[in-house]
Amino acid sequence: MNTNSSNMMALAPNTSKKRETVCIFGTGDFGRALGHKMIQCGYHVVYGSRSTQISNLIPKDAEVLSHAEAAQKAAIIIIAIQRQHYNFLTPLAEILRGKVVVDISNNLKLNQYPESNAEYLAQLLPGARVVKAFNTVSAWALQSGALDASRQVFVCGDDTEAKEMVMNIVRALGLTPLDQGSLLAAQEIENYPLQLFPMWKFPIFLSLGLTVFFFFYCLALDVIYTYIYENNNFSFFIAMTIPNRVCPVVALILLGLVYLPGVLAAIIQLYRGTKYRRFPDWLDKWMLCRKQLGLIALAFASLHAVFTLASPLRSFVKWRNAKPIISQALNNQTEPLDTTNAWLSDSYLALGIIGFFFFVLVGITSLPSVSNSVNWREFRFVQSKLGYLTLILCTAHTLVYGGKWFLSPSAYKWYLPNIYMLSLVVPCAVLVVKFVLIFPCVDKPLTRIRQGWERNPKSSE
Amino acid sequence: MNTNSSNMMALAPNTSKKRETVCIFGTGDFGRALGHKMIQCGYHVVYGSRSTQISNLIPKDAEVLSHAEAAQKAAIIIIAIQRQHYNFLTPLAEILRGKVVVDISNNLKLNQYPESNAEYLAQLLPGARVVKAFNTVSAWALQSGALDASRQVFVCGDDTEAKEMVMNIVRALGLTPLDQGSLLAAQEIENYPLQLFPMWKFPIFLSLGLTVFFFFYCLALDVIYTYIYENNNFSFFIAMTIPNRVCPVVALILLGLVYLPGVLAAIIQLYRGTKYRRFPDWLDKWMLCRKQLGLIALAFASLHAVFTLASPLRSFVKWRNAKPIISQALNNQTEPLDTTNAWLSDSYLALGIIGFFFFVLVGITSLPSVSNSVNWREFRFVQSKLGYLTLILCTAHTLVYGGKWFLSPSAYKWYLPNIYMLSLVVPCAVLVVKFVLIFPCVDKPLTRIRQGWERNPKSSE
Amino acid sequence: MNTNSSNMMALAPNTSKKRETVCIFGTGDFGRALGHKMIQCGYHVVYGSRSTQISNLIPKDAEVLSHAEAAQKAAIIIIAIQRQHYNFLTPLAEILRGKVVVDISNNLKLNQYPESNAEYLAQLLPGARVVKAFNTVSAWALQSGALDASRQVFVCGDDTEAKEMVMNIVRALGLTPLDQGSLLAAQEIENYPLQLFPMWKFPIFLSLGLTVFFFFYCLALDVIYTYIYENNNFSFFIAMTIPNRVCPVVALILLGLVYLPGVLAAIIQLYRGTKYRRFPDWLDKWMLCRKQLGLIALAFASLHAVFTLASPLRSFVKWRNAKPIISQALNNQTEPLDTTNAWLSDSYLALGIIGFFFFVLVGITSLPSVSNSVNWREFRFVQSKLGYLTLILCTAHTLVYGGKWFLSPSAYKWYLPNIYMLSLVVPCAVLVVKFVLIFPCVDKPLTRIRQGWERNPKSSE
Repeated sequence: MNTNSSNMMALAPNTSKKRETVCIFGTGDFGRALGHKMIQCGYHVVYGSRSTQISNLIPKDAEVLSHAEAAQKAAIIIIAIQRQHYNFLTPLAEILRGKVVVDISNNLKLNQYPESNAEYLAQLLPGARVVKAFNTVSAWALQSGALDASRQVFVCGDDTEAKEMVMNIVRALGLTPLDQGSLLAAQEIENYPLQLFPMWKFPIFLSLGLTVFFFFYCLALDVIYTYIYENNNFSFFIAMTIPNRVCPVVALILLGLVYLPGVLAAIIQLYRGTKYRRFPDWLDKWMLCRKQLGLIALAFASLHAVFTLASPLRSFVKWRNAKPIISQALNNQTEPLDTTNAWLSDSYLALGIIGFFFFVLVGITSLPSVSNSVNWREFRFVQSKLGYLTLILCTAHTLVYGGKWFLSPSAYKWYLPNIYMLSLVVPCAVLVVKFVLIFPCVDKPLTRIRQGWERNPKSSE
Repeated sequence: MNTNSSNMMALAPNTSKKRETVCIFGTGDFGRALGHKMIQCGYHVVYGSRSTQISNLIPKDAEVLSHAEAAQKAAIIIIAIQRQHYNFLTPLAEILRGKVVVDISNNLKLNQYPESNAEYLAQLLPGARVVKAFNTVSAWALQSGALDASRQVFVCGDDTEAKEMVMNIVRALGLTPLDQGSLLAAQEIENYPLQLFPMWKFPIFLSLGLTVFFFFYCLALDVIYTYIYENNNFSFFIAMTIPNRVCPVVALILLGLVYLPGVLAAIIQLYRGTKYRRFPDWLDKWMLCRKQLGLIALAFASLHAVFTLASPLRSFVKWRNAKPIISQALNNQTEPLDTTNAWLSDSYLALGIIGFFFFVLVGITSLPSVSNSVNWREFRFVQSKLGYLTLILCTAHTLVYGGKWFLSPSAYKWYLPNIYMLSLVVPCAVLVVKFVLIFPCVDKPLTRIRQGWERNPKSSE
Repeated sequence: MNTNSSNMMALAPNTSKKRETVCIFGTGDFGRALGHKMIQCGYHVVYGSRSTQISNLIPKDAEVLSHAEAAQKAAIIIIAIQRQHYNFLTPLAEILRGKVVVDISNNLKLNQYPESNAEYLAQLLPGARVVKAFNTVSAWALQSGALDASRQVFVCGDDTEAKEMVMNIVRALGLTPLDQGSLLAAQEIENYPLQLFPMWKFPIFLSLGLTVFFFFYCLALDVIYTYIYENNNFSFFIAMTIPNRVCPVVALILLGLVYLPGVLAAIIQLYRGTKYRRFPDWLDKWMLCRKQLGLIALAFASLHAVFTLASPLRSFVKWRNAKPIISQALNNQTEPLDTTNAWLSDSYLALGIIGFFFFVLVGITSLPSVSNSVNWREFRFVQSKLGYLTLILCTAHTLVYGGKWFLSPSAYKWYLPNIYMLSLVVPCAVLVVKFVLIFPCVDKPLTRIRQGWERNPKSSE
């Protein structure tokens, strides 16, 4: 770029420098949508098609040629055709030699074929530089511009230059390319759009299992036991009372399970005297799904909060609250305020509210855009310090609420403990171990191990 | 980059390779802020100004020259001047020939001039390579670094190379360039910062219209009717009771309207036997504002939730709840628990709470950062499956709550139906049609049509 | 890129064009994690190490050589060694001449050394092109792929080309490089990961101070005064009643403080007759932490909302509500509905709910991903217009609630005003001044000043 104006004269006004030519094989939905978007962004698009009759669905600024002719016009060929028709490309192998061939296909099932579509394409076209891309983008989203779901385009391929060319197109279309490495990654990229919350599967099944177990536990103790021994029909407890007992229990157990693996990892590191040995596989997996466990715990805690706040609206609660008032009126007496009771009821409410408040705060920092705008230390502070504070407050909330039942024999229907007691096992265990771990005599060696010190070093740098 | 150290010797220590020189015409607010930021990022900035007296407001590392001199020093000239003063550039046309000229101007009104400012500039300077950029960035944000609002910079221009040079500057300043195509897009880019939630306009007006209608409907039935026929002054219903009747009704209708266009589209596709014909314009527009409709429905549902939870605090509700208790006490009797009533009240509360919970879940995945981190299948699952579940739960909530009034003649004041019944029309219609659509005999042809099959194909590939 | 296939023949199938070679000095945690990630992304990695014995912790595709040999193999050398060992690099200065040397170190304390680590490195290696990068990324996150916290990598350096090379690596690893300018920025970049919410410090201390003050104010008036003069033990007020009095007061004062600096700035600009003079430093700082003040105010308002909604569950409130009912029953009378009271109670509840609703709306637009997807005008509209609406509604909510106490002498225990009155000072002052500022005779000159007009211009362009 120099300021010598003579060589600039060549640039006649309105001569627009177009981007390069891109060829698209296939005039199906996605091929058309992609071509349309590319033309909009300044590319020259040539379609390769079996019949060169121009359908009115094809963007009007695009050329339609035979496959061979179209391929010769461009350095990049996008294959917008389903895998089962790939073998028609074999005769074109010579023309596609050295070209950048982009595989954008998806399958209908996870791991449908032994090799990924992109690797299969690379086998069919040994001279071509195959790049996998665009398979995570929806045609509808491209066309309507409503890219609500991911703007991320995963790209992989063995040829770095070819990959870079494709990534430039991705950027030009206003999307974000993410280099996933060599063509071996294609299998994973092709599986990606078929996944349905893979990281959430275990936490969701675990919480559903806990929910079902505690639901029937409560049903037995609160409805069936009452019906058999007290002849009271409290079947309507199924709608509100039991859910509002199960939700906090599951929330507290899940919250404990969020912090349990960290505590276990510390114990393992202390025992082994090194951090340079891998944790058992189950612990690694558990640690990677802590965020999901925590968010599900938050969901259950929120349900518990709303159920509780809505309880004064229940006709059962209104009836139950009216009973002592009527009996006082009938007995012509006004009971004085029971200060101990007031203290207890206010304490567990306040502990629950403040615990829930911190829980929501931790949840908000799990939002991708919030966690992206804090540094690592801040993220750790919120997720670890505030998280433990939440655990302490919620455990205290349960202890103050359920405390009075611990020693009362009426709480042990059928010799089974009340679910409040069951819910406290995991969080109390975590808190006790954590309390031991922060003692200086335990914390110091742990910190040294985490900074790389080894009790019995085997290999030196 | 080779490792031969001899040719590296030339690089004296502390010789910083600066970025290229950029020229800015105009020393107003935005010109100064932009120059300041560019100097910070390593550019050499030359201001072109009428008077070359250096004001103390101009960044101190910048040069100030006459327009002609400044333009000759750089390949990129940024025009930080208002459109009405553009004609002073005409004498400089020869100097600006071949240069990249960046138009950053904004207007005060939508479509203020027949052509965009950037196109007007391109007409004035026929030899220049005009690029539109930076108009969406605020000077205050650039200066203070508080880029809370968008970091996106829309860029358009007819010359790809010039555009790329400008996009590199945008990236260097820590902002995100978005290529919008040719200079024809300038009109839209110039209108963008003047827009005020264009996608929200129709949903907001619709919901306001519904709110006003139902407010007066309730006012007539609950306050005026009661005043005339029962001589009760319930005017204070305006503050809490009526809003808490209108909010859920509007929320449910809007939620139905979110899923209605999808159902209509399916019917149209089934009738036409093809997906390759455009939907009517109103349906296209409706489908694009479903997200907004849904979020407004969520806002109304949240208001309903808080109004309901706050109702035990109302002195009217306390008074109303006290009445039966006092009468029981006066009649010296304690009513037993009405189990049917307990079931009903608990069911609609539980349905409402769980429906609201899923509604909030769907709302959270509408946050840009969350929807960006899920794949298309996961986004569809949440927005469609969980969305329908929400609609079913909320409709059931309303049915259980309002069910008892359907057959009671007292509910038909002035022969008008209760608003609960009105609110159920749209969601029930959607659910019934959707239920028909998932029958295999209807679902199979629809799926085939959506995969590209046509009943009467007209043009082949 | 041409289609001449002869020069493409050289590209044997499966010959992957690898990215360039990168050298890493140091085989500690971060060096290994970074090397691992780079190999994954197609780089060839050479470790420089004191001992070239290959530890099984080092990624298996990497070479391990002596420092000198490793450095000669690559154009980019990443120094994954702590600052205190940097002096071993001095003998390598000649080999590192002209190379890109990347400093990734962090310190343990803010401003631990007089100069940043990167500047110290540049002094030790005068011929090297030192770039600071990667210090904000955690080794654990790199390894596990769980990049929950920031993906942003701050990059700075005096050599633009070297910086660009490092930024390309950052992009290839799927992270976002942010150019922070010259090596002078290294100090700030090294301090960044040690910061703990620096923008939040002042708002948090301010709100904690206000909370403590009002807590003891309430404790004195509501618990101690009552205990001394009325002999009532209301100590349990500490758990719920007092927090629920303090939260709304602090929320309202903080909300007022969000809008106070804007009003002050307008007065200063009007008084000075120009916008081209800097505001006092305290005002600038205050304006930059308005978002944080507002979000803390929202947190207090949310706590107030939940405390209030939970109050019907308190045994004290149940006892207090039962008293009038029992006395009515004992006196054999039913009090009619007090319509004025119903109006008042419903009004302040409705005002509070709607005010809180708008407050949450403003809070949601403060989420980075939401504010990033709106334009400047929309952001201003929500933050300013809706923010003022929130302030008006919340002030009105407090006025209606506390209004009855203004003139009642019983509200002035110990001649101290009720805290409702104290909470109204700041918001009312802001609203009154703002009301004056929107009068045309004041608004017009202010708008002109903000558009650049000066009453007494001193320097012309």
